[in-house]
Amino acid sequence: MADEVILLDFWPSPFGMRARIALAEKGIKYEYRDEDLENKSRFLLQVNPVHKKIPVLIDNGKPICESLIIVQYIDEVWKDKCLLMPSDPYKRAQARFWADFVDNKLYHCGRRVWFSKAEDKEEACKELIECLKLLEGELGNKPYFGGETLGFIDVALVPFNSWFCSYETCENFSIEPHCPKIVAWAKRCMEKESVSKSFPDHQMVCDLALQWKKKLGFE
Amino acid sequence: MADEVILLDFWPSPFGMRARIALAEKGIKYEYRDEDLENKSRFLLQVNPVHKKIPVLIDNGKPICESLIIVQYIDEVWKDKCLLMPSDPYKRAQARFWADFVDNKLYHCGRRVWFSKAEDKEEACKELIECLKLLEGELGNKPYFGGETLGFIDVALVPFNSWFCSYETCENFSIEPHCPKIVAWAKRCMEKESVSKSFPDHQMVCDLALQWKKKLGFE
Repeated sequence: MADEVILLDFWPSPFGMRARIALAEKGIKYEYRDEDLENKSRFLLQVNPVHKKIPVLIDNGKPICESLIIVQYIDEVWKDKCLLMPSDPYKRAQARFWADFVDNKLYHCGRRVWFSKAEDKEEACKELIECLKLLEGELGNKPYFGGETLGFIDVALVPFNSWFCSYETCENFSIEPHCPKIVAWAKRCMEKESVSKSFPDHQMVCDLALQWKKKLGFE
Repeated sequence: MADEVILLDFWPSPFGMRARIALAEKGIKYEYRDEDLENKSRFLLQVNPVHKKIPVLIDNGKPICESLIIVQYIDEVWKDKCLLMPSDPYKRAQARFWADFVDNKLYHCGRRVWFSKAEDKEEACKELIECLKLLEGELGNKPYFGGETLGFIDVALVPFNSWFCSYETCENFSIEPHCPKIVAWAKRCMEKESVSKSFPDHQMVCDLALQWKKKLGFE
């Protein structure tokens, strides 16, 4: 029987994008199912009863939840092509550290830029830039966080570029003067087909973000 | 030159305990340094400039931060003894999922029990029990989450037993009627020397927790 790989996702989700990029890097064929998050499918609730969230990867009936865990799973199962995790344990620990930083620090800073009131906006933007500067320090002069090739940190971080671009468009601030290397890195990543074809349309993300903002009462 | 392993820690920290248990399971000799969190050492700020938090493991000069990342690092470097992570990629993903659940769900539920006002206390206790029930479901009838031996989820979860015991003592509620298997599991873990000697004195944790509560204005 052929492998059956399914991804439950929601098109603008940076977390879902991580799984899409990893699957594309490895050249894995899969069935993509876009979820309506206001009316979640019975299947989603069944495969992720704890968090009830996308993305979920279902590999031959076995569900894997949480985007960074999915990416590691993909890397460990399809290990004959494009290894995303370094083989050295210390470098692996560093990769996990920065991916965790994206989830537990950068992501929240990004949301604060988006959802803070006018008077807190400047502070929120400053904090986001500080986070990006730390990441820029880790990138250094390497083409990718993973070195010469796309790796775990790249996959964890690059999906947020789509959202940062929408912050820049809608909030009228610019990341490039502060973090030119990160901006160049994001462009470099976008030149890879595995990344660009996993990305949603920029205008659609902007429109959706503005819609959400309105709904939540932020202008 | 002999290996130099240092652990920067704070004795009641459940996160620090994870590192202590993993090091004890592997039989690794190390230098323990207890940090004063109100007056952090220059060394701590130097080895964890991003989060400035304990625990930090320093392996021959190389710092590793974040407790679950430290445990995975220890497991990957000292791999000849007591493997904590399962070898099967799906089981690894499950182990990571439940460890993440402890950090992102259970930990916060625990804090809510401790720091919520009287009127919200019942709801907070209920939520904590719901979390523990989910974990009890995952444990099933196995002696450990890892199966026949202590594994990654066990190491991630068991340190919180010390805090739950202090909730029970101070808040006058009991976990055992709701989650008898989890309580039996915690006792089983405590029979292991690697776990029991990594645990702080119960009364000291209770005293410290009450002290913090007072300081933050909760009674």
